[in-house]
Amino acid sequence: MLKINAARLLNDLERLRSFGATGPGVVRLSLSPVDMEARRWLVERMTDAGLDASIDGVGTVFGRSRNAGPALVIGSHTDTQPTGGWLDGALGVIVGIEVVRALAECEATKLLAVDVASWIDEEGTFSGFLGSRSFVGESVDEAICNARNREGVLLADALKNAGLSEAPRVRLDKTRHMAYMEPHIEQGGRLEAGGMSIGVVTTIVGIREHVLRFTGQRNHAGTTPMSIRRDAGAALVAFIARMDDAFSALADADTVWTVGRIELNPGSFSVVPGQADLYLQFRDASAARLAAMQDALDALINEFDAHGGVRAEVKASEPPEQPVVMDSALQAHLANAAEVLAPGQWERMPSGASHDAQVIAHHLPACMLFVPSIGGVSHDFIEDTAEAHIVLGCEVAARAAADMLLAINP
Amino acid sequence: MLKINAARLLNDLERLRSFGATGPGVVRLSLSPVDMEARRWLVERMTDAGLDASIDGVGTVFGRSRNAGPALVIGSHTDTQPTGGWLDGALGVIVGIEVVRALAECEATKLLAVDVASWIDEEGTFSGFLGSRSFVGESVDEAICNARNREGVLLADALKNAGLSEAPRVRLDKTRHMAYMEPHIEQGGRLEAGGMSIGVVTTIVGIREHVLRFTGQRNHAGTTPMSIRRDAGAALVAFIARMDDAFSALADADTVWTVGRIELNPGSFSVVPGQADLYLQFRDASAARLAAMQDALDALINEFDAHGGVRAEVKASEPPEQPVVMDSALQAHLANAAEVLAPGQWERMPSGASHDAQVIAHHLPACMLFVPSIGGVSHDFIEDTAEAHIVLGCEVAARAAADMLLAINP
Repeated sequence: MLKINAARLLNDLERLRSFGATGPGVVRLSLSPVDMEARRWLVERMTDAGLDASIDGVGTVFGRSRNAGPALVIGSHTDTQPTGGWLDGALGVIVGIEVVRALAECEATKLLAVDVASWIDEEGTFSGFLGSRSFVGESVDEAICNARNREGVLLADALKNAGLSEAPRVRLDKTRHMAYMEPHIEQGGRLEAGGMSIGVVTTIVGIREHVLRFTGQRNHAGTTPMSIRRDAGAALVAFIARMDDAFSALADADTVWTVGRIELNPGSFSVVPGQADLYLQFRDASAARLAAMQDALDALINEFDAHGGVRAEVKASEPPEQPVVMDSALQAHLANAAEVLAPGQWERMPSGASHDAQVIAHHLPACMLFVPSIGGVSHDFIEDTAEAHIVLGCEVAARAAADMLLAINP
Repeated sequence: MLKINAARLLNDLERLRSFGATGPGVVRLSLSPVDMEARRWLVERMTDAGLDASIDGVGTVFGRSRNAGPALVIGSHTDTQPTGGWLDGALGVIVGIEVVRALAECEATKLLAVDVASWIDEEGTFSGFLGSRSFVGESVDEAICNARNREGVLLADALKNAGLSEAPRVRLDKTRHMAYMEPHIEQGGRLEAGGMSIGVVTTIVGIREHVLRFTGQRNHAGTTPMSIRRDAGAALVAFIARMDDAFSALADADTVWTVGRIELNPGSFSVVPGQADLYLQFRDASAARLAAMQDALDALINEFDAHGGVRAEVKASEPPEQPVVMDSALQAHLANAAEVLAPGQWERMPSGASHDAQVIAHHLPACMLFVPSIGGVSHDFIEDTAEAHIVLGCEVAARAAADMLLAINP
């Protein structure tokens, strides 16, 4: 009978929380001394769980099962945001270790192979998703040579200081690794609002980011009549209203768009802004809808620009991130386990946030399960999840892991 | 026959422009070495024009006519903005000197008394309107002890470095001074747009400035559905649209309002803003309309705040500046002179910008005349006015000055 040990799971989560604890939150930036302490502790816990564990050449902690493959990789990250919560990432890594222990303690599953990973730098202190990118074989040498943290420390120097420069880098082994599972906190309020306990992720949403620039005529705010102004800020505000209408017409309940920043120049009481920048992000699980939103945005920019008075243009864009679909067979295993352990209390949902799973999914069938975030809060010291949900999430992960491996290798 | 000397006027303006010339513009910040050079040159020019001239204890250049009063004061300022134009302020001072010379050269006016002033620091490098405030008897000692320029230099130290600490301060003499006239560039585009050559100022507009704060809930921009967001930035944008409607309903053609700055916090692509600040200024010539706009603004803030979700409040306000009405008898003299010299090419208009005249008007009947600004541009290196308009402005000032003085003392 497969059974996780809730006390052991929660004890390990609390112990991990102590590395970088700051009030109820955690500050454990990639490759910082406290992060390296936590990684060495993770190697011990993985070793105790029977894994062959080490820290690799980019900082990822990887514990390899001694059982023969095919193997499931369970992982997430243990680095945090500058003011992070205790569960973001950490949950998935400790759940992975508990699943390994639970499988080993059950006669029916003790020969199943689960490898566990704590990917380095998911949060991008130096270079986002560094560990998972290195694992799947993307080149990270350019990042190692050039990426710096906020203090200006080069990633290469941080790795050298951590004693990792010469360590081998763990790599995806297609002869062994058959799937990836990432348990994670939801980071939103949807499960809580719906009274749900488990989310089975269908898709990790795609993201588009643009800086739009409006260029009018800087003028004296006292002597320039409203009728002859070419106010870049007023154009920006009018643009947002039209964009909201256009996006609302295209959106479903999960579509999100955000104006995160507005800069009016020169930015004083007494000057009609001559230039205005709008920082826009939109996310959706559907590539088609993202394309339709982009078309609507482009048309609106052209319309404003053609209107004269104030010029409108895209000043800069981040490379688009396409939606990443989770493997349907793995989703089915998660859904089955959730329905057995929490009947009627789970739902399928997109992930609005980015995760290592989106990197790995291009190379290995991947899936994610979510547990609810209290108040929908994350990336904040007060981030939390009910103990019962943490335990349930681990139970679902263990059962689904066993099912996935037994389905391949009964 | 009263007649100004256009070449002499334009030569003096060009000579003054050379102090701090930067391309077509001028950088001549109050009490800077080049500003003090210009002030010493002004003392010379005033002395040559027959005035008893000196630099006073705060830096104002004051030239006193040797003729008996009653005297008209003509003045403006010769300090500039950090990137200033060549005529903003300078025009009024040099016109004053030319009017003195023209009156002296005409038999009918040679005994009339015109004193000329270049008030220090109208632009507020240290403390706005310092010279005119000191002249009318407002206390400036607190400013001298505490005000600093952008480089952190104390006004007291700047005065000491300029050798002015011990100099007496010129003061309004009610037994002598009967009126104040300030010729100035319009700094807006109204005269040009209407094909006018002269503006007779009716009122210097009042100003209200507020920072409005919207407080919602900071959230993850990917995982927070639109339906449950409390987006402070979105509330700010919606507020501006409603405010524009409310103000439009109250405005006349001269009413202006400006959103000069918007700050969304924390200000990144990926975070729904939890806080948003809006920097608002509005100006009008009517105290009643300003009060009505304030009422409409307050009602709208209360409406948004009561709506819940996002809090709305006034975070900070500048002290309100009330509109200042120009003396009607002096306006009539300017209007008469303008109609004689430029029939049908002048109009009455409010001043949307602030001027030393608004300080002096509380103590002495005051008036202003405007000449057109090319393209409505000021506080910019490319600020300019057609030579014909400069000359016409000086002719109107001279004729009006003579009429004002002869009306009192025929």
